[in-house]
Amino acid sequence: MLKIEHIGIAVQDLEASSLLFEKLLGTPAYKTEEVASEGVITSFFANGPNKIELLAATNPESPIAKFIQKKGEGMHHIAFAVTDIVAEIARLKAEGFVVLNETPKIGADNKLVAFLHPKSTQSVLIELCQDIK
Amino acid sequence: MLKIEHIGIAVQDLEASSLLFEKLLGTPAYKTEEVASEGVITSFFANGPNKIELLAATNPESPIAKFIQKKGEGMHHIAFAVTDIVAEIARLKAEGFVVLNETPKIGADNKLVAFLHPKSTQSVLIELCQDIK
Repeated sequence: MLKIEHIGIAVQDLEASSLLFEKLLGTPAYKTEEVASEGVITSFFANGPNKIELLAATNPESPIAKFIQKKGEGMHHIAFAVTDIVAEIARLKAEGFVVLNETPKIGADNKLVAFLHPKSTQSVLIELCQDIK
Repeated sequence: MLKIEHIGIAVQDLEASSLLFEKLLGTPAYKTEEVASEGVITSFFANGPNKIELLAATNPESPIAKFIQKKGEGMHHIAFAVTDIVAEIARLKAEGFVVLNETPKIGADNKLVAFLHPKSTQSVLIELCQDIK
């Protein structure tokens, strides 16, 4: 766990929210990217060593649509940067965490990612991510 | 907005949650601190340039008790480190954000802090914080 790579925030309207976060952070999004497999479109903002990721649903079955329906807009997950995602998955499984992706999958922003089930992490959805070289 | 200073996570049981985050982050809390004025007790974990702050209520009127009652345990706020909190409050007010503390107050971990109202920030509670020298 090297640092907080990004915080994911679930939003209804990506365009309006991007304008808001541009004002908040004093910098525009550096990237907008659709992850079709997840049913999301994302915008990324740089903030020093960290990022903010806004996530909007692209269809009603998207995990983001379901999250907003259940909890409303707001913070969705914390992503930690790791050096070796396979080793980190093994370490966390041994510690008793429930890993949702035993084999890392390809996520947004050129990353290998894996999620931990919130039931094992105090209701906080945790993502591990490692840069794809 | 220099970086994500910390993520605040609302928890019921500080001791059990601290053990969980110690396993997750691979490091123990470096500090436990009560902020009596807010009715909270906090634990801080270092994670590279960032921190995780666990917050538990010390009385039923605590904002953390109310948050958990309404939304359950989980991510509570994002704190951004700023160089000049007074200037940042003025900038954000001018941008239309609702600042809850027009004069910064003393928060946990030796910081001057101010919060933005979530109604102006896409339901995300935002804290600004500046080190007290």
